[in-house]
Amino acid sequence: MRMYDLIKKKRDGGVLSREEIYAFINGYVAGEIPDYQASALCMAIYFQGMTPEETTDLTLAVRDSGEMLDCSDIQGIRVDKHSTGGVGDKTSLVVAPIVASCGIKVAKMSGRGLGHTGGTIDKLESIHGFRTDLSPDEFRAVVNSVGLSIVGQSRNLAPADKLLYALRDVTATVDSIPLIASSIMGKKLCADDDCIVLDVKTGSGSFMKNKEDSIQLAEIMVEIGKRAGKQMMALVTDMDKPLGSAIGNALEVKEAIETLQGGGPSDFRELCLVLAANMMYLAKKGSLDECRVLAEEALVSGRAFQVFANMVKAQGGDVELVYHPEQMIQAAYIHTVYSPHTGYISRVNAEQYGLCALSLGAGRNTMEDKIDHSAGIYLLKKTGDFIKQGDALAILYCNRESALESAEKTLIHATEWNDDAPVSHPLIYKQIL
Amino acid sequence: MRMYDLIKKKRDGGVLSREEIYAFINGYVAGEIPDYQASALCMAIYFQGMTPEETTDLTLAVRDSGEMLDCSDIQGIRVDKHSTGGVGDKTSLVVAPIVASCGIKVAKMSGRGLGHTGGTIDKLESIHGFRTDLSPDEFRAVVNSVGLSIVGQSRNLAPADKLLYALRDVTATVDSIPLIASSIMGKKLCADDDCIVLDVKTGSGSFMKNKEDSIQLAEIMVEIGKRAGKQMMALVTDMDKPLGSAIGNALEVKEAIETLQGGGPSDFRELCLVLAANMMYLAKKGSLDECRVLAEEALVSGRAFQVFANMVKAQGGDVELVYHPEQMIQAAYIHTVYSPHTGYISRVNAEQYGLCALSLGAGRNTMEDKIDHSAGIYLLKKTGDFIKQGDALAILYCNRESALESAEKTLIHATEWNDDAPVSHPLIYKQIL
Repeated sequence: MRMYDLIKKKRDGGVLSREEIYAFINGYVAGEIPDYQASALCMAIYFQGMTPEETTDLTLAVRDSGEMLDCSDIQGIRVDKHSTGGVGDKTSLVVAPIVASCGIKVAKMSGRGLGHTGGTIDKLESIHGFRTDLSPDEFRAVVNSVGLSIVGQSRNLAPADKLLYALRDVTATVDSIPLIASSIMGKKLCADDDCIVLDVKTGSGSFMKNKEDSIQLAEIMVEIGKRAGKQMMALVTDMDKPLGSAIGNALEVKEAIETLQGGGPSDFRELCLVLAANMMYLAKKGSLDECRVLAEEALVSGRAFQVFANMVKAQGGDVELVYHPEQMIQAAYIHTVYSPHTGYISRVNAEQYGLCALSLGAGRNTMEDKIDHSAGIYLLKKTGDFIKQGDALAILYCNRESALESAEKTLIHATEWNDDAPVSHPLIYKQIL
Repeated sequence: MRMYDLIKKKRDGGVLSREEIYAFINGYVAGEIPDYQASALCMAIYFQGMTPEETTDLTLAVRDSGEMLDCSDIQGIRVDKHSTGGVGDKTSLVVAPIVASCGIKVAKMSGRGLGHTGGTIDKLESIHGFRTDLSPDEFRAVVNSVGLSIVGQSRNLAPADKLLYALRDVTATVDSIPLIASSIMGKKLCADDDCIVLDVKTGSGSFMKNKEDSIQLAEIMVEIGKRAGKQMMALVTDMDKPLGSAIGNALEVKEAIETLQGGGPSDFRELCLVLAANMMYLAKKGSLDECRVLAEEALVSGRAFQVFANMVKAQGGDVELVYHPEQMIQAAYIHTVYSPHTGYISRVNAEQYGLCALSLGAGRNTMEDKIDHSAGIYLLKKTGDFIKQGDALAILYCNRESALESAEKTLIHATEWNDDAPVSHPLIYKQIL
């Protein structure tokens, strides 16, 4: 099997066999297939697409390029949730405890974030002492005792994806739905969960800007998961505005804790409940309505909060911070942004809000950058809210005073005002089962 | 200017500017742009194509990546001919002497062949002693005294093309008309001739299998040449059957000498006359009809033959071989292939005929392979001829007896017989001015 023939076949619109796809991925990871052939194939895939079979085979080849998570001695059904990522998206911190508190195991591997804010792992690391590098034995022990553990991805998780993504990133071949789907699902399937709920974001704060692409991505990922023997569901949800009010690692953890204590912003709380209910429904806890009731009870009763506190404690974090989030790490500079106009906030560019948080230190430009866990933005007004000129719009947090001025400009530039209230968008566009 | 942005622009159907194209070529030759980005761009070009402006800019950037041929002290108008290559194509050996004998300078750089048989340079090297590595001063002196010199390409001719072609060859991005056109014309323009006639082959023995592609390639190459200030013409000519009767280096030189002496196969002689007449017409020697008469006279009078002999002598070749071609290098094994059927030869696969010659030793699989100048095929019957079962069809020449059996099989397998005479195809499909 020659790589040349694979490239030519795909270039000419052919369908690659499972053997061919495995030969490509294994050969690439082994260093036998050079980058220049891999990038040519990715560009051919960009133009010619892949069938669901091909996309599934690519996903499985990515999964099989490294180690699987060994969950053999975790008792009970395991469910996971994956978000394609958005600005202010801290749902895992609330959804996982809800589900775990209802008796379903959540053994979660999460990534670090590249871009506007950190990933779930970065967020959890704003809790002093919290360890995301548990050994496999420790991880399984926490899952069995607490019902939930969240750790970083092992170094040998889907190495093909790391190599391929780095190559796609510099060859303009990222925006290909089969390549995106196989990258996400290839890593996700390493955890070998029984059920997976995908939260596919759509809108200005997501890497999928339009609904049709998001739905297409969601559909192919659900199909891949089913073909791999998983219970699957995807929700296509709004990311045209930031989720909740907090953007930035420690700020988001605080907001998650508020939500676990029964408060929190209504949009964020609602999305968490929907996701948690769907996860439990997939895990056969009952009808969707029954699962929704279970999820609400988990928040109201404090059971989900307790699971979160237990996980923090079990993973070495300072559990006092969970009970007193006001004591969490604080930025040196806290700067209020005032509205320059009177009117309804009619639209925001969520991506620009994210980049504003990044400029304050909340995210990474490269994987080598250090995150400032205390940096970020707290939104006092969001799309649909009415605000008077001179009233407070948002609060910026950072440790470099010099970053404030341009961050404020970015934020205001990314906000639109109008005399009329905007039409409100649904939080959830589509459910794909 | 980031290479990433160039790839993305082309991927999305954009038009690259001259600055962007030069930045790509210069950066690639300088080793600053990695192969994996160059191959991704080539694949994007494969799918999105290039405008005539882009293709011209790419051609000029390829040309400018190395040295130009210095023809400053060659007097008079210079004309060149380029063939895209085919089986049995030895036209340069006849056309260049015809034109030079009519007072137009031909300062020709030719390539070595990769594939079924050698290039013009390989063919000339079957003449004992013939030097194709003249110094620039020697080259210009031969052109000025004889009217004609044919040498190999200098090492620093269009280095961008060498790099890019090697990359395209292993990434399935060879078959792109703008990339083919800029590769051919980028090298051709290094000789800085006044007029260029292109012989674009079409059919089973050519790399362009269908007429539409060949015409498209011819049109864009003519346009590139005109934009570069050249007098241009292209002829799209038949390569569905081998040209002439001889395939293989020394065999082809012999056939060229026969033709220069007024004999030779009719199809080959006719194409040489048409090409030579068009070259002279472009060089303003007269009307096309007048130029045709001049070309015929050059053969009949022996003037063209004399120029060829002069060139061989001036370049160190054994001129006795020109007068006595029967003394040229001979293969150890000469094997006659007999027709297994009675009927008209209705079709041959010219590419397979070429591969048959390659298997006998007449060509190269890699640039490191040595050519056997004496190896090849002499066709006794061609498409359209009637043959009886048991009559001689062709003669195989080689120095490895073991190669004969499978070569004979290949030849017969590539030949079709029919009770009815086939419809004959024109030799010249289209002239593009």
